[in-house]
Amino acid sequence: MWRGGSNTRTCKRRFFSSPTRSRHHRPPYMLHSRGSQHLKAMAEVDHLAAERATARFDVEEMKVAWAGSRHAVHVADRMARLVASDPVFRKDNRTMLSRKELFKDTLRKAAHAWKRIVELRLTEEEADLLRQYVDQPGYVDLHWGMFVPAIKGQGTEEQQHKWLPLAYKFQIIGCYAQTELGHGSNVQGLETTATFDPKTDEFVIHSPTLTSSKWWPGGLGKASTHAVVYARLITEGKDYGIHGFIVQLRSLEDHSPLPGVTLGDIGGKFGSGAYNSMDNGVLRFDHVRIPRDQMLMRLSQVTREGKYVHSNVPKQLLYGTMVYVRQSIVADASKALSRAVCIAVRYSAVRKQFGSQDGGPETQVLNYKTQQSRLFPLLASAYAFRFVGDWLNWLYTDVTQKLEAKDFSTLQEAHACTAGLKAVTTSVTADAIEECRKLCGGHGYLNSSGLPELFAVYVPACTYEGDNVVLLLQLASGKQPVGTMAYMGKVQYLMQCKSAVSSAEDWLNPDAIQEAFEARALRMAVNCAQNISQAASQEEAAGFYERSPDLLEAAVAHIQLIIVTKFIEKVHQEIPGHGVKEQLQALCNVYALYILHKHLGDFLATGCITPRQGALANEQLGKLYAQVRPNAVALVDAFNYTDHYLGSVLGRYDGDVYPALYEEAWKDPLNETVVPEGYHEYLRPLIKQQQLKLSRL
Amino acid sequence: MWRGGSNTRTCKRRFFSSPTRSRHHRPPYMLHSRGSQHLKAMAEVDHLAAERATARFDVEEMKVAWAGSRHAVHVADRMARLVASDPVFRKDNRTMLSRKELFKDTLRKAAHAWKRIVELRLTEEEADLLRQYVDQPGYVDLHWGMFVPAIKGQGTEEQQHKWLPLAYKFQIIGCYAQTELGHGSNVQGLETTATFDPKTDEFVIHSPTLTSSKWWPGGLGKASTHAVVYARLITEGKDYGIHGFIVQLRSLEDHSPLPGVTLGDIGGKFGSGAYNSMDNGVLRFDHVRIPRDQMLMRLSQVTREGKYVHSNVPKQLLYGTMVYVRQSIVADASKALSRAVCIAVRYSAVRKQFGSQDGGPETQVLNYKTQQSRLFPLLASAYAFRFVGDWLNWLYTDVTQKLEAKDFSTLQEAHACTAGLKAVTTSVTADAIEECRKLCGGHGYLNSSGLPELFAVYVPACTYEGDNVVLLLQLASGKQPVGTMAYMGKVQYLMQCKSAVSSAEDWLNPDAIQEAFEARALRMAVNCAQNISQAASQEEAAGFYERSPDLLEAAVAHIQLIIVTKFIEKVHQEIPGHGVKEQLQALCNVYALYILHKHLGDFLATGCITPRQGALANEQLGKLYAQVRPNAVALVDAFNYTDHYLGSVLGRYDGDVYPALYEEAWKDPLNETVVPEGYHEYLRPLIKQQQLKLSRL
Repeated sequence: MWRGGSNTRTCKRRFFSSPTRSRHHRPPYMLHSRGSQHLKAMAEVDHLAAERATARFDVEEMKVAWAGSRHAVHVADRMARLVASDPVFRKDNRTMLSRKELFKDTLRKAAHAWKRIVELRLTEEEADLLRQYVDQPGYVDLHWGMFVPAIKGQGTEEQQHKWLPLAYKFQIIGCYAQTELGHGSNVQGLETTATFDPKTDEFVIHSPTLTSSKWWPGGLGKASTHAVVYARLITEGKDYGIHGFIVQLRSLEDHSPLPGVTLGDIGGKFGSGAYNSMDNGVLRFDHVRIPRDQMLMRLSQVTREGKYVHSNVPKQLLYGTMVYVRQSIVADASKALSRAVCIAVRYSAVRKQFGSQDGGPETQVLNYKTQQSRLFPLLASAYAFRFVGDWLNWLYTDVTQKLEAKDFSTLQEAHACTAGLKAVTTSVTADAIEECRKLCGGHGYLNSSGLPELFAVYVPACTYEGDNVVLLLQLASGKQPVGTMAYMGKVQYLMQCKSAVSSAEDWLNPDAIQEAFEARALRMAVNCAQNISQAASQEEAAGFYERSPDLLEAAVAHIQLIIVTKFIEKVHQEIPGHGVKEQLQALCNVYALYILHKHLGDFLATGCITPRQGALANEQLGKLYAQVRPNAVALVDAFNYTDHYLGSVLGRYDGDVYPALYEEAWKDPLNETVVPEGYHEYLRPLIKQQQLKLSRL
Repeated sequence: MWRGGSNTRTCKRRFFSSPTRSRHHRPPYMLHSRGSQHLKAMAEVDHLAAERATARFDVEEMKVAWAGSRHAVHVADRMARLVASDPVFRKDNRTMLSRKELFKDTLRKAAHAWKRIVELRLTEEEADLLRQYVDQPGYVDLHWGMFVPAIKGQGTEEQQHKWLPLAYKFQIIGCYAQTELGHGSNVQGLETTATFDPKTDEFVIHSPTLTSSKWWPGGLGKASTHAVVYARLITEGKDYGIHGFIVQLRSLEDHSPLPGVTLGDIGGKFGSGAYNSMDNGVLRFDHVRIPRDQMLMRLSQVTREGKYVHSNVPKQLLYGTMVYVRQSIVADASKALSRAVCIAVRYSAVRKQFGSQDGGPETQVLNYKTQQSRLFPLLASAYAFRFVGDWLNWLYTDVTQKLEAKDFSTLQEAHACTAGLKAVTTSVTADAIEECRKLCGGHGYLNSSGLPELFAVYVPACTYEGDNVVLLLQLASGKQPVGTMAYMGKVQYLMQCKSAVSSAEDWLNPDAIQEAFEARALRMAVNCAQNISQAASQEEAAGFYERSPDLLEAAVAHIQLIIVTKFIEKVHQEIPGHGVKEQLQALCNVYALYILHKHLGDFLATGCITPRQGALANEQLGKLYAQVRPNAVALVDAFNYTDHYLGSVLGRYDGDVYPALYEEAWKDPLNETVVPEGYHEYLRPLIKQQQLKLSRL
């Protein structure tokens, strides 16, 4: 379990809050309505003005619908501009930095962000957003996102009292050391041991094998002073399984590793820039001793005598944290996807190709149906993921309140939903970012397009916090829950219903969509169950194993139903602003009919719709694309991303792409000299035919 | 049009060949049966020995089937070992090099490769393979792959006589300058002008706008001395469209750009290492003059007086080159895909996860059905692409022979097939490499896995030499060709046939597969044609435009039919070696049934098969996976890749992954110091609560 890139901190407090602080006291630069660069561009040119003029809805109100509230728009706006206008936070040169430079830059940004948070007395919400807009994975993500929540969730009150104030003030820097070199998703397979020594009242933390080396934890390699370490608790000669321990790793005086602790970075990762700003680390213990009270003891304890005892705190509480972390990953998916879509939509409006026979102006790429049919479903998906993320966030709050009242009735469903939605949204987003890159043609391959780095930094989301396939199988193997599974109650009807759609327009009816998606999900689940039970001579586990690929597909169908349902519910709500609701309605239909077309085999194989109805859905999809087209640029403007945050020459707000691409090229280190290094050794001898010299290389 | 990474050179000659040279005179290191590193590993440990023991076929004979001939195996083997054993060609540190270091390293490798080619008097075939195994994109790829072929294809005999000897000896280094900052796939949209000046008998090459800057050509940025430049030919005040010109760019004395020429690199690209070894370049002309005879004049000329005249050489010859280049891209696709699959299969056999309740050994990931259902279709695709590539290569030879006899009858089909196969195989391969990376779990995200770089260096294949979507649309809009389209002749039968499959085993019958794929492709094409003609009030072009997303799908169906057909034809041939044919038969079925399952909607919507038959296909697929499982590691061993070429810690032949991963980590520059740079400035002040100091950052 290693991650970062977003802030998943749960603590609800104001940093160094002051009662006299007023929202109206802002440093002068925050009064700008946009970052200065942006202002300049706005004043001079807007190549996309014509696109913006064709929008049939109120973009400012759409920003509210996207962000969730007017307040959310304003806070995000202020924080984004605060970051964009601060030279310390520049990131346009990030992909050109060496690993060491990049890491130092990350330390610098983290320290500077903290300084600003303290100076400006930012609220927790503001601080979170500020770190998001800094947009560079680093140790602080794990400190706030995993270390602090682990202590809050698994520590006793005394432990929280001792450790949290240190963490809150950064007097210690913490990370979360779970995964090992030989062990990923399967926590039960971890090998690190924590053996209680009653003689000294200490645990001995040890790495018995090479494969037990802690491997991947973010912030571990170079920055953290402490870690929550997961290890097999052994006391009185018995292995009690995996538990968490607070372990100091480095000296607070000079940052050197403590005796018995081996620490390092695990090496370069996918892409330039990207996740290489993070010090994912390796950690080995050679019989390192920690006091007994550094075991996280909220759920179980080891007594002074070495007895293992359970507390009366229900274990389900741990799942609450997992729900929180995963719902935040779904929220991150809509952010990453919307960034990629914003870049691709804007550049598709700028870029022209073909369509002219006589040297006249070519056609905007965004006008091609093939471009629309690849890009608009992703635009719709960004909105779909945003709204299902909002719902998950509500679900988390609801579950938390119930947990506090010892009501565990909805926990399992929330846990299954978030796991499944995490798996589906992150997989789709990873593929979609790459699709957006391809939709930008050759220039999408340049680092200056921002898309290679966005992809490289995003893809680990498919693996961390539960591999997507493992999560979907867990979902598929779960018992029948309530709530989102309520449609299972309509089994008899859904098993035999036939879609009434008889024209393309009929597919605009949300009930028709909902029923088709419910019937498909249900029938796939039932088919799987039948196939498993039909594997007569085998035991159930074997049948489950044989049919696991089908189960995966059934799980995806269930999750897609949830996303469609929540989008439909959203559109049923009152949504203020001219044309906003109509646009969301169109995007909701695009999303649903696109999924239907993509998974047509499911719908036909289960007899939920006929081939003719499938063709009508596809026909309607084409009409919806035409409806989205004039609104496309405004629909990505509504994400309200600064040029700094987008970090893409192709996605510039002003659409003035080509001069910027041209200028960007000259910044490459290779352009520092006209004649490249190596010319005299390796090119000139070739050209001058100095073969003999060359052979003495 | 910019590319590299493979050698697509057509010239058939031996470099510095000597009639006395014998195959039996080899330097001593070439007598090793494997690279020394490999030997060592082999002697000490083979974690995959048990996997290799379960193979039910003769791996050495499968190597022959894969490589095409016993000769091909031996040559590839020798060249791969030659590269692997030479320290100049090491690439394990490539992702850690700065852009400048990486480029210099590329120059060094290119010069060293040339030196070896000359010293060892390698044949063209051997030299080609040697460069492939060096496995680092660089200017030589464009020199041999684009510059030389352009002169051979478009130059007159005198021009070839003048320029080719210089190019063959590297006295000039050439590239291929077609695409511009504002213009990609659409060659007709290029803006660069070549205006004939009859006063001086020269062409004036000029970049009239920013967007006309040449942009992307590989080898242009820093290495090339010359380029074939594509520009609008203007003479006597008339624009005659795009033509090629040989233009010198840099001084042969000191490599400085000639007057009026602006040159640079266009900046960093996707990934670390990867394509950043290539100097993709930008080039602007300010009224640069070249002699008239540097226009490539094979197909048309400008006379001394400025008259534009066509030669009697048929224009179709140009398509021959395009067929050649694209068929080589299909061959490259199977190479890239097989590398990724080799890594993922081997590591899936090494890696263990879950499956143990009591701390006992976990289950090999390769045993999970979900892993198999994702990985084995990619293994099958690698073989499928390999064989369709062999067929395309034959087709190219055949077309070339016919062209020489002025027979153009098969050219159009060959052109359409290669375009479509290029589009499908590169798209699938790009996605498959990333899927293989995910199938390796978290460790696939490390550069040391080799997969991030393999992906980043591969993906441009989807864009260069014709964007995949553009190519598929061209295919879909083509007239009805012969040959692979012969099934169109069976229209009446295929429009109404029903599959006779009634058991899972029936799907093992190649005729059943062939018929289902033919019916599907035909019916989709007919549906498109009907829908377009039904767009009654509109003109045909508008109907085509509206239906272009459907046309894409129909084109893909047609290409998949070709791949399946050629795989079936391959398996019908005599294939020597114990069990080899049976394995290929199984892989052929896996490929076909996987595609059927993935595109089930197509087959059901067109009524080619019933839902029940679809379910039977899926059932049979599961059985085939079980059949492939014990042969999986041996099937990737048959690719015969050295550890050097694979460049992956996870894909090591000996499976000894974890110690190697651990060792690799410590090479990261971040591990040069225990306490990271930046600690004193940015971490210590936090930990020590020196807030005031910090605020003076």
